[in-house]
Formats: sequence, C-alpha cells, structure tokens
Amino acid sequence: MTGRSQVTGITKMRGDLRESVDDKVAVEEPLEIRLGYEIAGERHTRSVSITMRTPGHDEDLAIGFLVSESIIQSPGDVAIIKPCKGDNTLRVELEVGVAVDLERLQRHFYTTSSCGVCGKASLDALHAVGVEAPADGVRFPRDALVQLPERLSKAQATFDETGGLHAAAAFDPYGELLIVREDVGRHNAVDKVIGALFAAGRLPATRLGLMVSGRASFELMQKTLVAGMPLLAAISAPSSLAVELAREFNVSLVGFLRGDTFNIYAGEGRIA
Amino acid sequence: MTGRSQVTGITKMRGDLRESVDDKVAVEEPLEIRLGYEIAGERHTRSVSITMRTPGHDEDLAIGFLVSESIIQSPGDVAIIKPCKGDNTLRVELEVGVAVDLERLQRHFYTTSSCGVCGKASLDALHAVGVEAPADGVRFPRDALVQLPERLSKAQATFDETGGLHAAAAFDPYGELLIVREDVGRHNAVDKVIGALFAAGRLPATRLGLMVSGRASFELMQKTLVAGMPLLAAISAPSSLAVELAREFNVSLVGFLRGDTFNIYAGEGRIA
Repeated sequence: MTGRSQVTGITKMRGDLRESVDDKVAVEEPLEIRLGYEIAGERHTRSVSITMRTPGHDEDLAIGFLVSESIIQSPGDVAIIKPCKGDNTLRVELEVGVAVDLERLQRHFYTTSSCGVCGKASLDALHAVGVEAPADGVRFPRDALVQLPERLSKAQATFDETGGLHAAAAFDPYGELLIVREDVGRHNAVDKVIGALFAAGRLPATRLGLMVSGRASFELMQKTLVAGMPLLAAISAPSSLAVELAREFNVSLVGFLRGDTFNIYAGEGRIA
Repeated sequence: MTGRSQVTGITKMRGDLRESVDDKVAVEEPLEIRLGYEIAGERHTRSVSITMRTPGHDEDLAIGFLVSESIIQSPGDVAIIKPCKGDNTLRVELEVGVAVDLERLQRHFYTTSSCGVCGKASLDALHAVGVEAPADGVRFPRDALVQLPERLSKAQATFDETGGLHAAAAFDPYGELLIVREDVGRHNAVDKVIGALFAAGRLPATRLGLMVSGRASFELMQKTLVAGMPLLAAISAPSSLAVELAREFNVSLVGFLRGDTFNIYAGEGRIA
C-alpha cells in the first residue's frame, strides 16, 4: 500500500543560499469509486467518481462520498466493499433492494428542474432529497471550540511532515476529537470522517460537530447537513452559500476559529 | 450581476466578548458550462461542467476550463459565448468542424485503458492527448520570484474583505503580474487566468509563469502544462503527483514561496 507521504529530493532556496535536501510531500493518487447495484433483477456496475486523494482510509472515503451524495442511507445498504484492479479502485456493492438514483449524481445538488442552476436551487435540491435540519438539543461551549485548532493540528500526524494535507475531524461538545482524517482534498478529508461515522453506525451524528482545517464552502456545509451534524467549524472563511445553507437548515456555522476568537455565521443558539 | 462579496450580519467572539457586526463573505454560486458542437452535420448541446464559483470573469472561467480539458485549442475554435437561463449558465458554441472528444471529459485524465486508474496513468493520459513539455528558453530570477507573494496579496482586491478567495496570476520573468483572478475554487481561479490568456491569443504562454495562493496539486500542474507555461509557483506545498508531473514534462515547480525562501521541486535550470 502507498503511504501518505513520500520523500523526494528538492532544492531549498534561502536568500542567496541554494541547498539540496530530502523533503517529504503529501501523496496524491486517483481513486475510482465503482458502484454495484440491482435494477429489476439485473446487476449493474458504474463508475460514480474519480477523485485525487491521499491513500489511507479509502473505504471511509468511498462510503462517506456515497453518504454525502445521499446514495446510501444506512450501513445495511452496503453488501461489500472490495478493491478491484489494483489499489486505486474500490467497488461498493449495494444490497439487493436498495434504490439508486444515479441522476442525482449528475445534477449534483446545484440545480432543480424548476429554476435551473443557482444558489437557491442548490438549497431547494437538498430539501427535495429529504435533508432535514439537525436536532437542536446540543450546546458547544466557547471554551471547547477555541481548543479545537490546536488539537486538530496536534492530531495531524502527516501535516507537519508535508504541509500539504487538509484535515477534518468529528468532535464532541467537550472539544474532544473523536475521528481525524487527512487528505490533499478538502472534500475527501470530510468524506473520510463521515464514512468512518457511518461505518460505526453513528449517523446521524446529532451530538457531534465537524471541524475543517480550511474554508467552509457550500459542499462542506452540505456534507455536514447530510451527516446530521449540528455544527461546522472552520479555521478559515465561509462562503456566501455556506452561510445561506446553514441558516436555511439551522446548522451552526463558525469561521475564522483562531486563538480565542471566532465568528458565528449561523445557529448562534448552540454556542454556549 | 452578482458581486464577488456580500455583506452579512455575524457575531464576533473575542474571549468572553460577543459582538454583532456586519461582515463580508465571498460569494459562491454554481456556474453551468454548456457546450454546443456539431457532429455529422447535426448540432448538439451538452452540459460539461457545473462548478461552484465566485461570479466575475465567467467567460474566462468557461474558456479556461475547456482549454484545461483539451477540448479547445485555439481562439478560432469558439464561435460564440452567451449566457442562457440567467446568470449562472454559459453556452459555449464551437465553430463547425471543431472535433470534440467528450469521453475525455469523463475519463478526466486520471485513467488509461492500459492500466486503469493510477498516478502513472494520469501522466500517460497527458502524453496521449499530445501535451508537450514547455519551451526551455526562459529564466526566472530568484529576486523576481520572492516578490510574487506580496504582489499577489496586494492585487487581491477581494481577499482583504472576505479572507475566502483563492488567487491565481500569470507573471513574467520580471515578476510583474499580468493577469490576476480570484475565486472560492482554486481550480476556477487558475481556469480564469488561462481563459484570459487564451482570449488574448497568448497561449501557449511559453514565457509566463503561473502563481497560485494555495497548494500545487496534479490538476493545477496539468493546467499549467496545457497552457504551455514553464513554471508553477505556489505559496504552499505541492503534492507527490504534481512533482512527478513537473519532472516528467520538465515544468519548473516552486513551492512554499514565502519571504525570501522557497523550494524547487523540478526544473531548477529555469531559476536564475
């Protein structure tokens, strides 16, 4: 199996100094996800995604991707996951009787038949697939939130070596990180966390928050929502559509979480 | 037309202080690219991409995307670009006689028929579509490179307001930024730069470097290569496959460009 980082010879320039050293870079390799399913008694297989990822926790990534896209709903939907044709293709076989809407993959949540492609349509599309606002009973104390960035950074085993990986984590209201995953792709890191929660039977994760090392986009907020998580916390800025989505579905959205400061963009009631 | 940033009411937390203020966030809206083309005398239209982007320079984005995917090669390939169904869909009509290989879009450079999905296949796929190593006559002095981050940051009009946008720029060997584009998506910012170069008839840009505000991934290196640019410089880390691709095609790759230091991962000969 390929590792998460790889040694390569580079030239370091510091002012006028030129030095040849060995350095580590984050591994990036394509992963293809193939979905096996049954329609009217006949078995089909289709490639549903090719993504550039950092090897490791590939099954979590595949499952998290399918959950995020609302293709599977419960661990019982999956019959078996197995590699095929080498390390970079995973085949996910669904149980007989699991209905699959592959057109949804193509529409990809950004568009509805009523108004075409727009931000509002992206929100409507989530309503249409039955995504619901997360439960409202949990509170995350300020003191727990401000500890997250340092904990995430400590947990990021590979980050220190390569500086090239995004991290995502699921955390509880005490600020404890329960699952931490890394990847060259922001979305992949989140899919790996969601896939791990799914495999452990912990979705919807109504009492856990999701933490990301970068920015909060529409897609990351969508993944938070589909996982039933009530809070997304990001080290960097959120986008306009992430904020709108958070408000529409009453998810808490925290951004610029640094030192003892952060911004609350939505769902302030859950921050104690 | 939608702006690039948007004002929204937020709560700022600083220690125990809670303050309600107006803040700006980067706008994120979907853009659909539809391609019109002719096969055997018959006109077809197909959706080739839906991407989350920051509005502005949408035509550059659409064209840059098609160039990056090797769908179009010269400005003469494009008959007309026009919005359809509102602000978030662009239709690019190709001239009669321009051959289109839409299967390539699905394969997306990560896979070849010989060995399936893997990093090596991703390199081979670029050879297969006729991508060539960039010209070798240009030199970029160290002094020019170290000035790029500050210049990019100054040029990033929206960045200071929202902290949520990636930037990409084309620069000459004197370190002058010729084109700067911003977007919530890293790839989009680069596609906008490439689209602008293409529209100005400046591709292949054999004497210009490409600068990005974030990391250097396989896809960004691929775009650099397809644009004929001899150098990719990134503020952050490159991935393993970006390094491999740079070495395979003799593109110069600079990473961790900060202060007066940087790392050279490939094509050291062009750094004077």
